[in-house]
Amino acid sequence: MTPATAAITSLTNPRVKAAVRLRDRRERGLTGMTLVDGPRELLRALDHGIGVVEAFACDDLIRTLDAEEAVRRLQIAGSEVIQVSADVMAKVAFGDRSEGVVAVIRTPDTALDRLTLPPAPLVVIVESVEKPGNLGAILRTADGAGADAVIAADPLTDLFNPNAIRASLGTIFSVPVASDATSATLGWLETKGIRAIAARVDATTLYTDVDLHGPIAIVLGSEADGLSTGWNDPRVTAVRIPMLGTADSLNVSVAAAILLYEAVRQRT
Amino acid sequence: MTPATAAITSLTNPRVKAAVRLRDRRERGLTGMTLVDGPRELLRALDHGIGVVEAFACDDLIRTLDAEEAVRRLQIAGSEVIQVSADVMAKVAFGDRSEGVVAVIRTPDTALDRLTLPPAPLVVIVESVEKPGNLGAILRTADGAGADAVIAADPLTDLFNPNAIRASLGTIFSVPVASDATSATLGWLETKGIRAIAARVDATTLYTDVDLHGPIAIVLGSEADGLSTGWNDPRVTAVRIPMLGTADSLNVSVAAAILLYEAVRQRT
Repeated sequence: MTPATAAITSLTNPRVKAAVRLRDRRERGLTGMTLVDGPRELLRALDHGIGVVEAFACDDLIRTLDAEEAVRRLQIAGSEVIQVSADVMAKVAFGDRSEGVVAVIRTPDTALDRLTLPPAPLVVIVESVEKPGNLGAILRTADGAGADAVIAADPLTDLFNPNAIRASLGTIFSVPVASDATSATLGWLETKGIRAIAARVDATTLYTDVDLHGPIAIVLGSEADGLSTGWNDPRVTAVRIPMLGTADSLNVSVAAAILLYEAVRQRT
Repeated sequence: MTPATAAITSLTNPRVKAAVRLRDRRERGLTGMTLVDGPRELLRALDHGIGVVEAFACDDLIRTLDAEEAVRRLQIAGSEVIQVSADVMAKVAFGDRSEGVVAVIRTPDTALDRLTLPPAPLVVIVESVEKPGNLGAILRTADGAGADAVIAADPLTDLFNPNAIRASLGTIFSVPVASDATSATLGWLETKGIRAIAARVDATTLYTDVDLHGPIAIVLGSEADGLSTGWNDPRVTAVRIPMLGTADSLNVSVAAAILLYEAVRQRT
Protein backbone atom coordinates (compact mmCIF):
# COMPACT_ATOMS: atom_id res chain seq x y z
CA MET A 1 0.00 0.00 0.00
CA THR A 2 1.23 3.48 -0.82
CA PRO A 3 0.18 6.01 1.75
CA ALA A 4 -1.66 8.93 0.19
CA THR A 5 0.20 11.29 2.49
CA ALA A 6 3.35 11.08 4.57
CA ALA A 7 3.00 9.05 7.79
CA ILE A 8 2.43 10.92 11.04
CA THR A 9 5.58 10.61 13.12
CA SER A 10 4.79 13.10 15.89
CA LEU A 11 3.51 11.86 19.22
CA THR A 12 2.04 15.29 19.82
CA ASN A 13 -0.11 15.25 16.68
CA PRO A 14 -3.61 16.26 17.85
CA ARG A 15 -5.35 13.26 16.29
CA VAL A 16 -2.83 10.90 17.84
CA LYS A 17 -3.26 12.54 21.23
CA ALA A 18 -7.05 12.35 20.94
CA ALA A 19 -6.87 8.64 20.17
CA VAL A 20 -4.48 7.95 23.06
CA ARG A 21 -6.86 9.79 25.42
CA LEU A 22 -9.49 7.15 24.60
CA ARG A 23 -7.61 4.72 26.79
CA ASP A 24 -9.12 6.71 29.65
CA ARG A 25 -12.61 5.58 30.68
CA ARG A 26 -13.86 9.11 31.38
CA GLU A 27 -12.77 10.26 27.94
CA ARG A 28 -14.57 7.31 26.36
CA GLY A 29 -17.71 8.25 28.28
CA LEU A 30 -17.48 11.89 27.20
CA THR A 31 -16.82 11.21 23.54
CA GLY A 32 -18.92 8.08 23.04
CA MET A 33 -15.94 6.53 21.28
CA THR A 34 -13.51 3.72 22.02
CA LEU A 35 -10.48 1.97 20.52
CA VAL A 36 -10.35 -1.35 18.72
CA ASP A 37 -6.82 -2.70 18.78
CA GLY A 38 -5.91 -5.60 16.54
CA PRO A 39 -6.98 -6.83 13.12
CA ARG A 40 -9.04 -9.81 14.24
CA GLU A 41 -11.04 -7.61 16.63
CA LEU A 42 -11.44 -4.97 13.93
CA LEU A 43 -12.63 -7.49 11.34
CA ARG A 44 -15.33 -8.68 13.76
CA ALA A 45 -16.38 -5.08 14.35
CA LEU A 46 -16.61 -4.47 10.58
CA ASP A 47 -18.56 -7.72 10.13
CA HIS A 48 -21.16 -6.36 12.52
CA GLY A 49 -21.50 -2.90 11.04
CA ILE A 50 -19.73 -0.95 13.78
CA GLY A 51 -19.20 2.70 12.87
CA VAL A 52 -15.50 3.47 12.38
CA VAL A 53 -14.52 7.10 12.98
CA GLU A 54 -10.92 6.78 11.81
CA ALA A 55 -8.13 4.24 11.87
CA PHE A 56 -4.38 4.30 12.37
CA ALA A 57 -2.15 1.94 10.45
CA CYS A 58 1.58 1.37 10.35
CA ASP A 59 2.58 -0.54 7.24
CA ASP A 60 5.88 -1.60 8.80
CA LEU A 61 4.00 -3.46 11.53
CA ILE A 62 1.42 -5.11 9.28
CA ARG A 63 2.61 -8.68 8.89
CA THR A 64 -0.51 -10.84 8.89
CA LEU A 65 -3.22 -11.51 6.33
CA ASP A 66 -5.83 -10.42 8.90
CA ALA A 67 -4.12 -7.05 9.28
CA GLU A 68 -3.94 -6.53 5.51
CA GLU A 69 -7.58 -7.53 5.19
CA ALA A 70 -8.62 -5.15 7.98
CA VAL A 71 -6.91 -2.18 6.31
CA ARG A 72 -8.33 -3.13 2.92
CA ARG A 73 -11.85 -3.37 4.28
CA LEU A 74 -11.53 -0.06 6.11
CA GLN A 75 -10.48 1.55 2.83
CA ILE A 76 -13.31 -0.06 0.86
CA ALA A 77 -15.77 1.19 3.49
CA GLY A 78 -14.41 4.70 2.98
CA SER A 79 -12.92 5.02 6.46
CA GLU A 80 -9.96 7.30 6.83
CA VAL A 81 -6.83 5.22 7.46
CA ILE A 82 -4.08 7.42 8.85
CA GLN A 83 -0.54 6.19 8.29
CA VAL A 84 1.62 6.53 11.38
CA SER A 85 5.18 5.61 12.32
CA ALA A 86 5.93 2.58 14.50
CA ASP A 87 6.60 4.94 17.42
CA VAL A 88 3.19 6.54 17.09
CA MET A 89 1.52 3.14 16.71
CA ALA A 90 3.21 1.96 19.91
CA LYS A 91 1.56 4.88 21.68
CA VAL A 92 -1.92 4.36 20.23
CA ALA A 93 -1.89 0.56 20.55
CA PHE A 94 -1.70 -1.35 23.84
CA GLY A 95 1.20 -3.45 24.90
CA ASP A 96 4.21 -4.25 22.82
CA ARG A 97 2.69 -6.62 20.32
CA SER A 98 0.96 -4.20 18.00
CA GLU A 99 -0.32 -5.77 14.82
CA GLY A 100 -0.23 -2.47 12.99
CA VAL A 101 -3.84 -1.32 12.96
CA VAL A 102 -6.02 0.41 15.55
CA ALA A 103 -9.44 1.98 14.93
CA VAL A 104 -11.49 4.59 16.72
CA ILE A 105 -15.14 3.50 16.72
CA ARG A 106 -18.41 4.88 18.00
CA THR A 107 -19.28 2.87 21.12
CA PRO A 108 -22.39 0.78 20.46
CA ASP A 109 -25.51 1.55 22.50
CA THR A 110 -25.71 -0.81 25.48
CA ALA A 111 -29.23 0.00 26.68
CA LEU A 112 -30.90 -3.08 28.14
CA ASP A 113 -34.23 -2.39 26.42
CA ARG A 114 -32.55 -2.57 23.01
CA LEU A 115 -31.76 -6.27 23.42
CA THR A 116 -33.85 -8.52 21.23
CA LEU A 117 -33.97 -12.16 22.20
CA PRO A 118 -35.08 -15.40 20.60
CA PRO A 119 -37.58 -17.65 22.41
CA ALA A 120 -35.98 -19.50 25.36
CA PRO A 121 -32.83 -17.40 25.38
CA LEU A 122 -29.58 -18.30 27.13
CA VAL A 123 -28.34 -15.11 28.79
CA VAL A 124 -25.23 -14.37 30.87
CA ILE A 125 -25.29 -11.69 33.57
CA VAL A 126 -22.07 -10.63 35.24
CA GLU A 127 -22.36 -8.26 38.18
CA SER A 128 -19.77 -5.73 39.30
CA VAL A 129 -17.18 -7.03 36.88
CA GLU A 130 -14.02 -5.00 37.36
CA LYS A 131 -11.30 -6.50 35.19
CA PRO A 132 -11.73 -5.94 31.45
CA GLY A 133 -9.81 -9.17 30.91
CA ASN A 134 -12.44 -11.17 32.78
CA LEU A 135 -15.26 -9.44 30.92
CA GLY A 136 -13.59 -10.15 27.60
CA ALA A 137 -12.98 -13.79 28.53
CA ILE A 138 -16.66 -14.20 29.47
CA LEU A 139 -17.72 -12.68 26.14
CA ARG A 140 -15.46 -15.05 24.24
CA THR A 141 -16.91 -18.06 26.08
CA ALA A 142 -20.48 -16.75 25.70
CA ASP A 143 -19.87 -16.56 21.95
CA GLY A 144 -18.57 -20.13 21.95
CA ALA A 145 -21.59 -21.37 23.89
CA GLY A 146 -23.96 -19.53 21.57
CA ALA A 147 -25.35 -17.31 24.34
CA ASP A 148 -28.02 -14.85 23.17
CA ALA A 149 -26.84 -11.92 25.30
CA VAL A 150 -24.31 -10.84 27.91
CA ILE A 151 -25.40 -8.21 30.43
CA ALA A 152 -23.01 -6.32 32.68
CA ALA A 153 -24.98 -5.39 35.82
CA ASP A 154 -23.54 -2.55 37.91
CA PRO A 155 -20.22 -2.92 36.09
CA LEU A 156 -17.04 -1.38 37.49
CA THR A 157 -15.55 -1.16 34.00
CA ASP A 158 -17.14 0.09 30.80
CA LEU A 159 -18.30 -2.71 28.54
CA PHE A 160 -16.40 -1.41 25.52
CA ASN A 161 -13.17 -0.87 27.42
CA PRO A 162 -10.44 -1.43 24.80
CA ASN A 163 -8.93 -4.21 26.89
CA ALA A 164 -12.29 -5.97 27.13
CA ILE A 165 -12.68 -5.71 23.34
CA ARG A 166 -9.21 -7.20 22.93
CA ALA A 167 -9.70 -9.98 25.51
CA SER A 168 -12.99 -10.89 23.81
CA LEU A 169 -11.08 -11.33 20.51
CA GLY A 170 -13.77 -9.08 19.06
CA THR A 171 -16.66 -11.38 20.01
CA ILE A 172 -18.04 -8.37 21.91
CA PHE A 173 -19.28 -7.24 18.47
CA SER A 174 -21.05 -10.51 17.67
CA VAL A 175 -22.67 -11.34 21.03
CA PRO A 176 -25.51 -8.92 21.91
CA VAL A 177 -24.39 -6.97 24.99
CA ALA A 178 -26.03 -4.58 27.41
CA SER A 179 -25.25 -2.81 30.64
CA ASP A 180 -27.57 -1.58 33.39
CA ALA A 181 -28.09 -1.42 37.14
CA THR A 182 -28.71 -4.70 38.96
CA SER A 183 -32.19 -3.53 39.98
CA ALA A 184 -33.13 -2.77 36.37
CA THR A 185 -31.66 -6.11 35.27
CA LEU A 186 -33.78 -7.98 37.83
CA GLY A 187 -36.88 -6.14 36.60
CA TRP A 188 -35.99 -6.97 33.00
CA LEU A 189 -35.63 -10.68 33.83
CA GLU A 190 -39.06 -10.62 35.47
CA THR A 191 -40.67 -8.89 32.49
CA LYS A 192 -39.08 -11.27 30.01
CA GLY A 193 -39.92 -14.38 32.06
CA ILE A 194 -36.28 -15.44 32.29
CA ARG A 195 -35.21 -17.64 35.22
CA ALA A 196 -32.01 -16.55 36.97
CA ILE A 197 -29.50 -19.27 37.89
CA ALA A 198 -26.91 -17.67 40.15
CA ALA A 199 -23.51 -19.14 41.01
CA ARG A 200 -22.81 -18.91 44.73
CA VAL A 201 -20.07 -20.58 46.73
CA ASP A 202 -22.53 -21.19 49.61
CA ALA A 203 -25.37 -22.67 47.53
CA THR A 204 -26.55 -26.17 48.42
CA THR A 205 -27.76 -27.23 44.95
CA LEU A 206 -25.19 -28.49 42.46
CA TYR A 207 -25.33 -26.72 39.08
CA THR A 208 -25.65 -30.10 37.38
CA ASP A 209 -28.82 -30.88 39.35
CA VAL A 210 -30.73 -27.87 37.97
CA ASP A 211 -32.83 -27.94 34.80
CA LEU A 212 -31.19 -25.45 32.44
CA HIS A 213 -33.75 -25.68 29.64
CA GLY A 214 -35.99 -22.79 28.69
CA PRO A 215 -35.34 -19.07 29.09
CA ILE A 216 -32.48 -18.76 31.61
CA ALA A 217 -29.85 -16.31 32.73
CA ILE A 218 -26.58 -17.55 34.25
CA VAL A 219 -25.62 -14.96 36.90
CA LEU A 220 -22.11 -14.43 38.22
CA GLY A 221 -20.88 -12.08 40.92
CA SER A 222 -17.50 -10.56 41.49
CA GLU A 223 -14.71 -12.81 42.72
CA ALA A 224 -14.02 -10.57 45.68
CA ASP A 225 -17.55 -9.91 46.92
CA GLY A 226 -19.90 -12.39 45.24
CA LEU A 227 -23.38 -11.23 44.28
CA SER A 228 -25.12 -8.23 45.79
CA THR A 229 -28.17 -8.69 48.03
CA GLY A 230 -30.48 -7.91 45.10
CA TRP A 231 -30.03 -11.52 44.03
CA ASN A 232 -31.26 -12.87 47.40
CA ASP A 233 -34.65 -13.50 45.90
CA PRO A 234 -36.79 -16.65 45.95
CA ARG A 235 -37.09 -16.40 42.17
CA VAL A 236 -33.33 -16.79 41.80
CA THR A 237 -31.95 -20.35 41.86
CA ALA A 238 -28.59 -20.46 43.62
CA VAL A 239 -26.22 -23.17 42.41
CA ARG A 240 -22.72 -24.18 43.36
CA ILE A 241 -19.83 -25.59 41.39
CA PRO A 242 -18.01 -28.34 43.33
CA MET A 243 -14.74 -27.12 44.83
CA LEU A 244 -12.70 -30.25 45.49
CA GLY A 245 -9.27 -28.75 46.21
CA THR A 246 -7.79 -26.14 48.53
CA ALA A 247 -9.01 -22.91 46.92
CA ASP A 248 -12.51 -21.68 47.70
CA SER A 249 -13.51 -20.22 44.35
CA LEU A 250 -12.89 -20.32 40.61
CA ASN A 251 -12.05 -17.43 38.33
CA VAL A 252 -15.32 -15.76 37.31
CA SER A 253 -14.78 -16.46 33.61
CA VAL A 254 -14.06 -20.12 34.38
CA ALA A 255 -17.25 -20.36 36.47
CA ALA A 256 -19.17 -18.79 33.58
CA ALA A 257 -17.73 -21.35 31.17
CA ILE A 258 -18.64 -24.33 33.35
CA LEU A 259 -22.25 -23.15 33.78
CA LEU A 260 -22.70 -22.09 30.16
CA TYR A 261 -21.44 -25.36 28.75
CA GLU A 262 -23.57 -27.36 31.19
CA ALA A 263 -26.52 -25.41 29.77
CA VAL A 264 -25.36 -26.25 26.23
CA ARG A 265 -25.03 -29.92 27.18
CA GLN A 266 -28.55 -30.06 28.62
CA ARG A 267 -30.13 -28.02 25.82
CA THR A 268 -28.71 -29.97 22.87
CA MET B 1 6.18 -6.00 64.30
CA THR B 2 9.45 -4.33 65.16
CA PRO B 3 12.13 -5.03 62.58
CA ALA B 4 15.26 -6.44 64.18
CA THR B 5 17.39 -4.26 61.93
CA ALA B 6 16.79 -1.13 59.86
CA ALA B 7 14.87 -1.72 56.65
CA ILE B 8 16.83 -2.01 53.41
CA THR B 9 16.12 1.10 51.35
CA SER B 10 18.72 0.65 48.61
CA LEU B 11 17.68 -0.73 45.25
CA THR B 12 21.30 -1.75 44.69
CA ASN B 13 21.50 -3.91 47.80
CA PRO B 14 22.96 -7.24 46.60
CA ARG B 15 20.18 -9.36 48.13
CA VAL B 16 17.52 -7.16 46.56
CA LYS B 17 19.25 -7.35 43.20
CA ALA B 18 19.56 -11.13 43.45
CA ALA B 19 15.84 -11.43 44.18
CA VAL B 20 14.88 -9.12 41.30
CA ARG B 21 17.03 -11.22 38.95
CA LEU B 22 14.74 -14.18 39.72
CA ARG B 23 12.11 -12.60 37.52
CA ASP B 24 14.30 -13.81 34.67
CA ARG B 25 13.68 -17.41 33.61
CA ARG B 26 17.31 -18.18 32.92
CA GLU B 27 18.29 -16.99 36.39
CA ARG B 28 15.58 -19.18 37.91
CA GLY B 29 16.96 -22.13 35.98
CA LEU B 30 20.52 -21.44 37.09
CA THR B 31 19.74 -20.91 40.76
CA GLY B 32 16.90 -23.41 41.20
CA MET B 33 14.96 -20.68 42.97
CA THR B 34 11.85 -18.62 42.23
CA LEU B 35 9.71 -15.88 43.75
CA VAL B 36 6.37 -16.19 45.51
CA ASP B 37 4.57 -12.86 45.47
CA GLY B 38 1.54 -12.38 47.69
CA PRO B 39 0.46 -13.63 51.09
CA ARG B 40 -2.21 -16.05 49.91
CA GLU B 41 0.24 -17.72 47.54
CA LEU B 42 2.89 -17.81 50.25
CA LEU B 43 0.52 -19.34 52.81
CA ARG B 44 -0.30 -22.15 50.36
CA ALA B 45 3.44 -22.70 49.79
CA LEU B 46 4.03 -22.89 53.55
CA ASP B 47 1.06 -25.25 53.96
CA HIS B 48 2.77 -27.63 51.57
CA GLY B 49 6.25 -27.52 53.08
CA ILE B 50 7.96 -25.49 50.37
CA GLY B 51 11.51 -24.51 51.31
CA VAL B 52 11.79 -20.75 51.85
CA VAL B 53 15.26 -19.29 51.29
CA GLU B 54 14.46 -15.78 52.48
CA ALA B 55 11.57 -13.34 52.42
CA PHE B 56 11.15 -9.61 51.95
CA ALA B 57 8.49 -7.72 53.88
CA CYS B 58 7.46 -4.10 53.99
CA ASP B 59 5.39 -3.38 57.11
CA ASP B 60 3.93 -0.22 55.54
CA LEU B 61 2.34 -2.30 52.79
CA ILE B 62 1.03 -5.10 54.99
CA ARG B 63 -2.67 -4.40 55.35
CA THR B 64 -4.39 -7.79 55.30
CA LEU B 65 -4.72 -10.58 57.84
CA ASP B 66 -3.29 -13.00 55.27
CA ALA B 67 -0.17 -10.86 54.93
CA GLU B 68 0.30 -10.64 58.71
CA GLU B 69 -0.24 -14.38 58.98
CA ALA B 70 2.28 -15.08 56.20
CA VAL B 71 4.99 -13.01 57.92
CA ARG B 72 4.20 -14.57 61.29
CA ARG B 73 4.43 -18.08 59.88
CA LEU B 74 7.70 -17.32 58.11
CA GLN B 75 9.13 -16.10 61.41
CA ILE B 76 7.86 -19.14 63.33
CA ALA B 77 9.45 -21.38 60.70
CA GLY B 78 12.76 -19.60 61.28
CA SER B 79 12.92 -18.04 57.80
CA GLU B 80 14.80 -14.81 57.48
CA VAL B 81 12.32 -11.96 56.85
CA ILE B 82 14.17 -8.95 55.51
CA GLN B 83 12.48 -5.59 56.09
CA VAL B 84 12.56 -3.38 53.01
CA SER B 85 11.20 0.03 52.08
CA ALA B 86 8.12 0.40 49.88
CA ASP B 87 10.40 1.40 47.00
CA VAL B 88 12.43 -1.76 47.32
CA MET B 89 9.27 -3.87 47.65
CA ALA B 90 7.91 -2.31 44.46
CA LYS B 91 11.05 -3.56 42.71
CA VAL B 92 10.96 -7.08 44.13
CA ALA B 93 7.19 -7.54 43.77
CA PHE B 94 5.29 -7.57 40.46
CA GLY B 95 2.86 -4.94 39.38
CA ASP B 96 1.65 -2.09 41.48
CA ARG B 97 -0.52 -3.94 43.96
CA SER B 98 2.09 -5.38 46.29
CA GLU B 99 0.66 -6.87 49.44
CA GLY B 100 3.91 -6.38 51.31
CA VAL B 101 5.52 -9.80 51.31
CA VAL B 102 7.54 -11.71 48.72
CA ALA B 103 9.52 -14.89 49.34
CA VAL B 104 12.40 -16.57 47.56
CA ILE B 105 11.81 -20.33 47.51
CA ARG B 106 13.61 -23.39 46.22
CA THR B 107 11.77 -24.46 43.07
CA PRO B 108 10.09 -27.82 43.67
CA ASP B 109 11.29 -30.79 41.62
CA THR B 110 9.01 -31.27 38.62
CA ALA B 111 10.30 -34.63 37.39
CA LEU B 112 7.49 -36.68 35.89
CA ASP B 113 8.61 -39.92 37.58
CA ARG B 114 8.17 -38.31 41.01
CA LEU B 115 4.40 -38.02 40.56
CA THR B 116 2.44 -40.41 42.73
CA LEU B 117 -1.14 -41.00 41.71
CA PRO B 118 -4.22 -42.55 43.26
CA PRO B 119 -6.09 -45.31 41.41
CA ALA B 120 -8.12 -43.96 38.45
CA PRO B 121 -6.47 -40.54 38.48
CA LEU B 122 -7.76 -37.43 36.75
CA VAL B 123 -4.76 -35.76 35.13
CA VAL B 124 -4.43 -32.56 33.09
CA ILE B 125 -1.75 -32.24 30.42
CA VAL B 126 -1.11 -28.89 28.79
CA GLU B 127 1.30 -28.83 25.87
CA SER B 128 3.48 -25.90 24.81
CA VAL B 129 1.82 -23.52 27.24
CA GLU B 130 3.42 -20.13 26.81
CA LYS B 131 1.54 -17.66 28.99
CA PRO B 132 2.13 -18.05 32.73
CA GLY B 133 -1.36 -16.58 33.26
CA ASN B 134 -2.97 -19.44 31.34
CA LEU B 135 -0.88 -22.02 33.19
CA GLY B 136 -1.85 -20.48 36.53
CA ALA B 137 -5.53 -20.37 35.55
CA ILE B 138 -5.43 -24.05 34.58
CA LEU B 139 -3.81 -24.94 37.91
CA ARG B 140 -6.48 -23.03 39.81
CA THR B 141 -9.26 -24.86 37.93
CA ALA B 142 -7.48 -28.21 38.28
CA ASP B 143 -7.41 -27.62 42.04
CA GLY B 144 -11.13 -26.81 42.01
CA ALA B 145 -11.93 -29.97 40.05
CA GLY B 146 -9.80 -32.09 42.35
CA ALA B 147 -7.39 -33.14 39.60
CA ASP B 148 -4.62 -35.45 40.74
CA ALA B 149 -1.84 -33.88 38.67
CA VAL B 150 -1.09 -31.21 36.10
CA ILE B 151 1.68 -31.92 33.59
CA ALA B 152 3.25 -29.26 31.39
CA ALA B 153 4.47 -31.04 28.25
CA ASP B 154 7.12 -29.24 26.20
CA PRO B 155 6.27 -25.99 28.04
CA LEU B 156 7.42 -22.62 26.68
CA THR B 157 7.40 -21.15 30.18
CA ASP B 158 8.81 -22.61 33.39
CA LEU B 159 6.16 -24.17 35.60
CA PHE B 160 7.16 -22.13 38.66
CA ASN B 161 7.29 -18.84 36.79
CA PRO B 162 6.36 -16.24 39.44
CA ASN B 163 3.42 -15.08 37.33
CA ALA B 164 2.12 -18.65 37.05
CA ILE B 165 2.39 -19.03 40.83
CA ARG B 166 0.45 -15.80 41.27
CA ALA B 167 -2.21 -16.62 38.64
CA SER B 168 -2.71 -20.02 40.30
CA LEU B 169 -3.41 -18.23 43.62
CA GLY B 170 -0.84 -20.60 45.07
CA THR B 171 -2.72 -23.77 44.06
CA ILE B 172 0.47 -24.71 42.20
CA PHE B 173 1.71 -25.83 45.62
CA SER B 174 -1.31 -28.03 46.37
CA VAL B 175 -1.87 -29.71 42.99
CA PRO B 176 0.92 -32.19 42.09
CA VAL B 177 2.73 -30.78 39.04
CA ALA B 178 5.34 -32.08 36.65
CA SER B 179 7.02 -31.05 33.44
CA ASP B 180 8.57 -33.13 30.70
CA ALA B 181 8.85 -33.59 26.95
CA THR B 182 5.69 -34.61 25.08
CA SER B 183 7.32 -37.89 24.04
CA ALA B 184 8.18 -38.75 27.65
CA THR B 185 4.66 -37.77 28.72
CA LEU B 186 3.12 -40.10 26.12
CA GLY B 187 5.35 -42.92 27.35
CA TRP B 188 4.37 -42.20 30.95
CA LEU B 189 0.65 -42.34 30.08
CA GLU B 190 1.20 -45.72 28.42
CA THR B 191 3.11 -47.09 31.39
CA LYS B 192 0.49 -45.87 33.86
CA GLY B 193 -2.44 -47.10 31.78
CA ILE B 194 -3.98 -43.65 31.57
CA ARG B 195 -6.28 -42.86 28.62
CA ALA B 196 -5.61 -39.51 26.90
CA ILE B 197 -8.64 -37.38 25.98
CA ALA B 198 -7.39 -34.57 23.77
CA ALA B 199 -9.30 -31.39 22.92
CA ARG B 200 -9.13 -30.64 19.20
CA VAL B 201 -11.15 -28.14 17.21
CA ASP B 202 -11.37 -30.62 14.31
CA ALA B 203 -12.48 -33.64 16.35
CA THR B 204 -15.79 -35.26 15.41
CA THR B 205 -16.69 -36.66 18.86
CA LEU B 206 -18.31 -34.30 21.36
CA TYR B 207 -16.58 -34.23 24.75
CA THR B 208 -19.90 -35.03 26.43
CA ASP B 209 -20.22 -38.26 24.42
CA VAL B 210 -17.01 -39.75 25.80
CA ASP B 211 -16.79 -41.87 28.95
CA LEU B 212 -14.59 -39.93 31.36
CA HIS B 213 -14.50 -42.53 34.14
CA GLY B 214 -11.34 -44.39 35.09
CA PRO B 215 -7.73 -43.23 34.73
CA ILE B 216 -7.79 -40.35 32.25
CA ALA B 217 -5.72 -37.37 31.18
CA ILE B 218 -7.36 -34.29 29.67
CA VAL B 219 -4.91 -32.98 27.05
CA LEU B 220 -4.84 -29.40 25.78
CA GLY B 221 -2.67 -27.84 23.10
CA SER B 222 -1.60 -24.27 22.57
CA GLU B 223 -4.20 -21.80 21.34
CA ALA B 224 -2.02 -20.80 18.42
CA ASP B 225 -0.90 -24.19 17.16
CA GLY B 226 -3.05 -26.87 18.79
CA LEU B 227 -1.45 -30.17 19.74
CA SER B 228 1.77 -31.49 18.26
CA THR B 229 1.76 -34.53 15.98
CA GLY B 230 2.81 -36.75 18.89
CA TRP B 231 -0.84 -36.80 19.92
CA ASN B 232 -1.98 -38.16 16.53
CA ASP B 233 -2.15 -41.62 17.98
CA PRO B 234 -4.98 -44.16 17.87
CA ARG B 235 -4.74 -44.48 21.66
CA VAL B 236 -5.63 -40.79 22.07
CA THR B 237 -9.35 -39.92 21.98
CA ALA B 238 -9.89 -36.58 20.25
CA VAL B 239 -12.91 -34.61 21.46
CA ARG B 240 -14.36 -31.27 20.53
CA ILE B 241 -16.18 -28.62 22.50
CA PRO B 242 -19.13 -27.16 20.56
CA MET B 243 -18.35 -23.73 19.10
CA LEU B 244 -21.72 -22.12 18.44
CA GLY B 245 -20.69 -18.52 17.76
CA THR B 246 -18.29 -16.67 15.48
CA ALA B 247 -14.94 -17.47 17.12
CA ASP B 248 -13.24 -20.76 16.32
CA SER B 249 -11.68 -21.58 19.67
CA LEU B 250 -11.89 -21.03 23.41
CA ASN B 251 -9.17 -19.83 25.72
CA VAL B 252 -7.08 -22.86 26.74
CA SER B 253 -7.88 -22.46 30.44
CA VAL B 254 -11.61 -22.22 29.63
CA ALA B 255 -11.39 -25.40 27.52
CA ALA B 256 -9.59 -27.12 30.40
CA ALA B 257 -12.36 -26.05 32.81
CA ILE B 258 -15.17 -27.35 30.58
CA LEU B 259 -13.51 -30.74 30.13
CA LEU B 260 -12.43 -31.10 33.75
CA TYR B 261 -15.85 -30.30 35.13
CA GLU B 262 -17.53 -32.66 32.67
CA ALA B 263 -15.20 -35.33 34.08
CA VAL B 264 -16.22 -34.33 37.62
CA ARG B 265 -19.90 -34.50 36.62
CA GLN B 266 -19.54 -37.98 35.16
CA ARG B 267 -17.34 -39.30 37.97
CA THR B 268 -19.50 -38.19 40.92
